[in-house]
Order: sequence, then C-alpha cells, then structure tokens
Amino acid sequence: MALPLALTMGEPAGIGGEIALKAWMRRGEGVPAFYLIDDPGRLTALAARLGWKVPVQAIDSAAGAPQVFRDALPVLPVGGKPAAELGRPETADAALVIGAIDRAVADVREGRAAALVTNPINKEALYRAGFRHPGHTEYLAELAGPGATAVMMLACPELRVVPVTIHLALRQAIEALSSAMIVAAGRVTHAALMRDFGVAAPVIAVAGLNPHAGEGGSLGREDLDIVMPAVGELRALGIDARGPLAADTMFHAAARRGYDAALCMYHDQALIPIKTIDFDGGVNVTLGLPFIRTSPDHGTAFDIAGQGIARPDSLIAALKLAAEMAARRQTSH
Amino acid sequence: MALPLALTMGEPAGIGGEIALKAWMRRGEGVPAFYLIDDPGRLTALAARLGWKVPVQAIDSAAGAPQVFRDALPVLPVGGKPAAELGRPETADAALVIGAIDRAVADVREGRAAALVTNPINKEALYRAGFRHPGHTEYLAELAGPGATAVMMLACPELRVVPVTIHLALRQAIEALSSAMIVAAGRVTHAALMRDFGVAAPVIAVAGLNPHAGEGGSLGREDLDIVMPAVGELRALGIDARGPLAADTMFHAAARRGYDAALCMYHDQALIPIKTIDFDGGVNVTLGLPFIRTSPDHGTAFDIAGQGIARPDSLIAALKLAAEMAARRQTSH
Repeated sequence: MALPLALTMGEPAGIGGEIALKAWMRRGEGVPAFYLIDDPGRLTALAARLGWKVPVQAIDSAAGAPQVFRDALPVLPVGGKPAAELGRPETADAALVIGAIDRAVADVREGRAAALVTNPINKEALYRAGFRHPGHTEYLAELAGPGATAVMMLACPELRVVPVTIHLALRQAIEALSSAMIVAAGRVTHAALMRDFGVAAPVIAVAGLNPHAGEGGSLGREDLDIVMPAVGELRALGIDARGPLAADTMFHAAARRGYDAALCMYHDQALIPIKTIDFDGGVNVTLGLPFIRTSPDHGTAFDIAGQGIARPDSLIAALKLAAEMAARRQTSH
Repeated sequence: MALPLALTMGEPAGIGGEIALKAWMRRGEGVPAFYLIDDPGRLTALAARLGWKVPVQAIDSAAGAPQVFRDALPVLPVGGKPAAELGRPETADAALVIGAIDRAVADVREGRAAALVTNPINKEALYRAGFRHPGHTEYLAELAGPGATAVMMLACPELRVVPVTIHLALRQAIEALSSAMIVAAGRVTHAALMRDFGVAAPVIAVAGLNPHAGEGGSLGREDLDIVMPAVGELRALGIDARGPLAADTMFHAAARRGYDAALCMYHDQALIPIKTIDFDGGVNVTLGLPFIRTSPDHGTAFDIAGQGIARPDSLIAALKLAAEMAARRQTSH
C-alpha cells in the first residue's frame, strides 16, 4: 500500500481544520490517503459544530493511516490542545503549529509518509512566539539542512510559475534581482520538472523584468544586463531556457503550451497570471528540498474560519499533486 | 443611416491592409460599416495577391461609404501610393501614414464619420521622418487640442484595464507614479465608463503597486503614500474607486465581476491579465479625447505581413467597440 501523505494542522484559528474535513469527505473523488497531525478532539468538535459526519480516529503512527482513511479521518495527535478559538490565533499555540511541521517532516524523511502537505500558518502569531523564519518555505529549508535551495513554484493544471523574487516591495525586488538568483531558480526548476513532474525535456520560459522585455534597452537595462546573461548561463548548462520574453504575451493559452514552467522576476508577474487563470485550484510547491512539500495557495482566512464555507479545492489539488510527485520519485528510484 | 467608421491605413508594410480586407469579408457577422483611408490600388493588388475576392471601390468622401460597404470595400484615397513593400517599411511613407490619421480625425470631428479606428503604425519609420510623438495616442491628443487628457484603456468582453504608467522601464514607472496621475486616469476612466460604455454607476478597482498592495507598509510604502491617497481623492470626487487591492487576486473571473475597470500602476500589471484572458480580441481605446478612437491591440507584425494569416479578431473587436461607443454618445446627445 502506498505511503500516506502527512498534512499539518497549520494555524488552528484558521480554515485548515475544516478544509481537511472537507477533503476527507471527498475521498471518493481521488483524494489520496492522508493523515492530519493535529488534536483529534478539536477536529471531532469542529465536525460536530459544522454538522458534518466525519468520524475522527486518533492513530499512533503514520503506518496506521491508510487502513483508517476509508472509514475515518486519521489524526496523529500533535501532543496538545490548541488554545485558539476560530478566527482568533493565540501565541501559545505556536509550539503545536511548529511541532506539527517538525513531525510531518520527520515522518517523510524517515519513510513513514510519502510527502508533506502544509496547512496555512499565521506568521504574526509565530513571530510573537519567537519564530524567526520568513515563512514555511524557509523553515523547511532549514529542516532540510545545508545545501538545499528552496524554490517556490505555483502550479495549476494549465501553468507553472516560479517567482525569482517573492515577498519584497517592487522597488526592492528590482534591486535584489541578479543573474545568479535566476540561474539558481532555473536549475532547481529544471531538475524538479524532470524528477517530480515527469517532464522529459523541460522548456523554461524566462520573463523579462521590464515592459516588452526592455525593448532592446530602451525600456530599461535589466533585461540585457541581468536576465539575458542568466538565460545564457542556463543554456550553457544544457537547460532549454528561453527569454527574456515579454511578460504580457507569454501567459495566454497558446503561449503556455510552449513551455513547462515560467520563471518570473517578481511576485505579481508570477501570481497575476496563475491566479487569473485558476484562482481556487492553485498549489504552492517547494522545489529543491530532499522531501516533497505542497501547500494550498491561500492563507488562514480568519474572516470565514468556522463557517464551513472555505473551499477545499486548493488543498485537494495540493494533496493530489504531492501524491503524484511522490509516485514519480518512487518509480524513478 | 448611421455614420461609417474611418479606418486608417496604418503602416503599409504591416498587416493593416490584409486585416482590413478580412474584416470586410466578415461584414455579415456584425462588423459595422467602415471605410479605409488608404491607396485603393494597393488594396486591389493585395487582395489579388492573396486570392481574396474583395472588390475595392474608391470613394470621394466618407458619405459614400455606407452605400458601398455591402458590395465593396470603400477606400477614400490617402493621396499617394505607398513605397513600402510588405515587411519593409519606408521612411518616405510617413507623410501618407500621418495623412491618413489626420484625415480620419477631420472626418470624425466634422461629422462625416462616427469614430476613428487606427491600424498599427511603425514608430521607428515615423521617427526617421521627423515624427515627434511617442505614439498614436499622444499624436491624437495633440490633434484634439489643449485640455484633452488621453488615457489608454485595453478592453475585452471580460475585463477593462487602464495602465497609469505605460511605456517606462519598471524602475522608472515606480519613480514616475504619483497620486495626481492616478486621480487623472481615474477621472477620465469614470467619465468614459458612463458616457461611452453605458455604465450607470461605475466601480473602479485600483491595484496596489507592491505585492499584497504593500501589506500595510511592510512590502513597500507606495501603496500607503501614493495609491491610497489617490483612491481617497477619487472617492471625495464621488467616484466609486476601491483599493489599493492586491493585484494578484483581482483579475480572476469572480473578482472581475465586482468592478467595471481596473486602474493598474504599470504596463505588465495591466497587460498580463488582459492578454492572458483574451489574447486575440483585446481592443486599445483612447479615453479622454473629444472623439472616439479604438485600435487593434497588436503591432504591424512585419514577420507575417502579406501571408494572409494575420488574425482580424482584434481589428473587428475594435470596429465593433467603436460603433457601440459612438451609438451611445449619439443617443446621449
């Protein structure tokens, strides 16, 4: 039997619990077996509150999850009861939130789970508790150990995008952009497309920073001075990178068919097209780690937490993609 | 009988002629009556070369166009024979290219044509001939006279976007952005939505410059210091402007239904979503002029000129939109 996926609790004041319940209820629709690392009592109460018939079964170890999954939601106890009420995060819960991530990573690294799927966390609550990482991705890179270059990809069935700079003011993103960053992101993306996405000969489209990719320098020098050399370096490494391309004309349906992933120079250049195309089903994938990690591409949604209206589409897509990626790694061993 | 639309020759080395022929051939599909300001002999030869049965009829004045349109493509002679071959622009043609624009504007201003539709021009060829305007839009603003604030909108059936800064390097766009520019674009957009697009109570979505609209200042100050005050000014003027909004989450189908036009802070922020959604059918509309002007949202396409493969979708959409806008202005008189 295939190994189950490890799904973290995420911020207990957010929608993580209810979308996990919903994903389990839709297990007949090809949702792969997973177990949640959370407090079983919290989930039993949440299901009762929402009027959903979800039997919750505490499990001792990941090994028990696949058998349980058909009839109940398997929950590996996170080791405590969260203090937060829905919509109101508590600093006191930070140890449990982080503990769930640590346990999930350990389960994957030690061969008890196929991959890691993370529910959204609330960074402010973790920061107040002393957490010192900009986010999930950076924390996972640290857990992975030295040598891991964590690269964020957003993926939906029609498009994969990799922002080379992420959470920076636009002005700072331009300042920070370097050929080395583009090359590093391109190398990790290329390797992941082959290993995890089953693309035999990946084509990577590289967006220009400026309008019309700088129009030969008349609309900014960065595309000539930074992006073009990076494309050249990637090509010299045997990677089929193409660009810099005009960003506005590279994301329509016909253009998308010409490449396997797009490297984008800043947050909105990557996120505008993918969220325009597929707002609910996008998945956040961390490339470059020794283990597979996906995540729904949304936040904790405190404003609607506990109402039962949060859509599980992105979590379900994240679970499915993690299982597909894990199956590819396994068959390639 | 409604006034015809005046369509300019555009760059004669480009695809303007053949998409005009194609648009005429599809006149049974609701393409409104138009006449081309061009060289009749050139179009006859182009149709023959492509093997298309398009009778070309020279007309003396715009008044003759509607009667002719059913049976032949009406062409008002531009007053000379272009020297360019397809794919190879000639500086010597600049006077004809500009003359066609001047004549079309005069026809519209003097009540002989309902609106102006412009075929793509080649700026380099015009610059070499001494043309001193950054593009069509600025030249039309000069023809319109003092007081006109020309604002570029790109429109497709699902989305209208207005870039507040346009052809600037991204770094320069950030430097140039001001509250006054946003307010000016918002005012012109609001007026045009009511007058030309028939929107009784327009809602204008204003994108933030930075990722997540700056996340309260932690991802850049511009959204607090520049965009937010502009939204406040627009609201104080009675305009239902909303924002600054996170740009990545404002262009999916459900979000688009919440507003009538999006003000965007830079070129790609506006053009990525509209070209991702509707690559072939987008229309460039100039707002803020005393006359109506639309244009296909593509260039001269020298690489395919004369092959007969250029798609007329955007030109047809531009003709239809110009006719709709003109009809609204007429009924509101």
